Amino acid sequence: MELYSGHINKLIEELAALPGIGSKSAQRLAFHLINMPEAKVKRLTQTILDAKENICYCKECYTLTDKEVCPVCASERRNHKLIMVVENTRDLAAYEKTGRYEGVYHVLHGAISPMLGVGPGDIKLKELIERLHDDVEEVIIATNSSLEGETTAMYISKMIKPSGIKVTRIASGVPVGGDLEYIDEVTLLRALEGRIEL
Amino acid sequence: MELYSGHINKLIEELAALPGIGSKSAQRLAFHLINMPEAKVKRLTQTILDAKENICYCKECYTLTDKEVCPVCASERRNHKLIMVVENTRDLAAYEKTGRYEGVYHVLHGAISPMLGVGPGDIKLKELIERLHDDVEEVIIATNSSLEGETTAMYISKMIKPSGIKVTRIASGVPVGGDLEYIDEVTLLRALEGRIEL
Repeated sequence: MELYSGHINKLIEELAALPGIGSKSAQRLAFHLINMPEAKVKRLTQTILDAKENICYCKECYTLTDKEVCPVCASERRNHKLIMVVENTRDLAAYEKTGRYEGVYHVLHGAISPMLGVGPGDIKLKELIERLHDDVEEVIIATNSSLEGETTAMYISKMIKPSGIKVTRIASGVPVGGDLEYIDEVTLLRALEGRIEL
Repeated sequence: MELYSGHINKLIEELAALPGIGSKSAQRLAFHLINMPEAKVKRLTQTILDAKENICYCKECYTLTDKEVCPVCASERRNHKLIMVVENTRDLAAYEKTGRYEGVYHVLHGAISPMLGVGPGDIKLKELIERLHDDVEEVIIATNSSLEGETTAMYISKMIKPSGIKVTRIASGVPVGGDLEYIDEVTLLRALEGRIEL
């Protein structure tokens, strides 16, 4: 016999398909949603639909935004000659939170991954090349420090270098406050290779 | 400057209000939802609304179901003289998964908690009393082994005992496979008090 009724099972199944939600959390969420006041449930589902409907890519940097051009690209105070390439909008937000980056961004929406069948054509690389006019001074590659991120960084670097534009990669090493004892060997070696003179 | 556009912020806020979802997970979920195909998003929101709309209380045991009477209460193979009192539908499902309980249930939808202002009138206690006809032989109290669960168990026991119906409480002790070393003192003492002769 099924433990829950059809509607509950279907809801649990749909919720468990979302990232980071296991079957236990999905059960908890499902019962929470069912017990929520109807008005709140409607507001939640409407918010999801509204976001889905109104969010589009910034036509300059391809971040997710509800305007034609995102606030960063639209700002005159930003240095448009400096482009930081990130994998997704959350990474852009992470750098924006620092409040210290003056340039603009380019959001790839993914990284090259032969394992997952993601090729250069599947991410916003062509769109990056199209943005590289003569006045761009530097492209900072801030893809993740994963296999996919590194592959993508290498690919972009090879693609842009012939044009003469400066290409840099954010540093990889021991995180601030990190205890060497708990840091993996690859990171330790990377930190050693990337050492700078004091 | 806001990191994300209004629609995204609103969605993140709504998601973060759900139980077990912190601000990081809410961000991840929000972007996942925005990047999902529109048809899938519509299916998810519709499933939530359908579940909310079609799920009601079983008129016998008050579990959440989409029928007037839930499958357990409707089954003739179950022993309707044996009622297990649980706090919520998930607890009912936990016992159903064992596949060994033959009786029916009564779902309280909460537990008495003076701290949270939940009194006996706020859970389905009156409904339990109304179910106790002459042919009910035993009421098994399977509320959680928490302060609230114990308080509720005591309350129910005092309420039912005068009627002459047998009232029992599920055993509390060391979980199967549990290592004594890692078990709290209260549980250890409870296990000692509840020891049975071999």
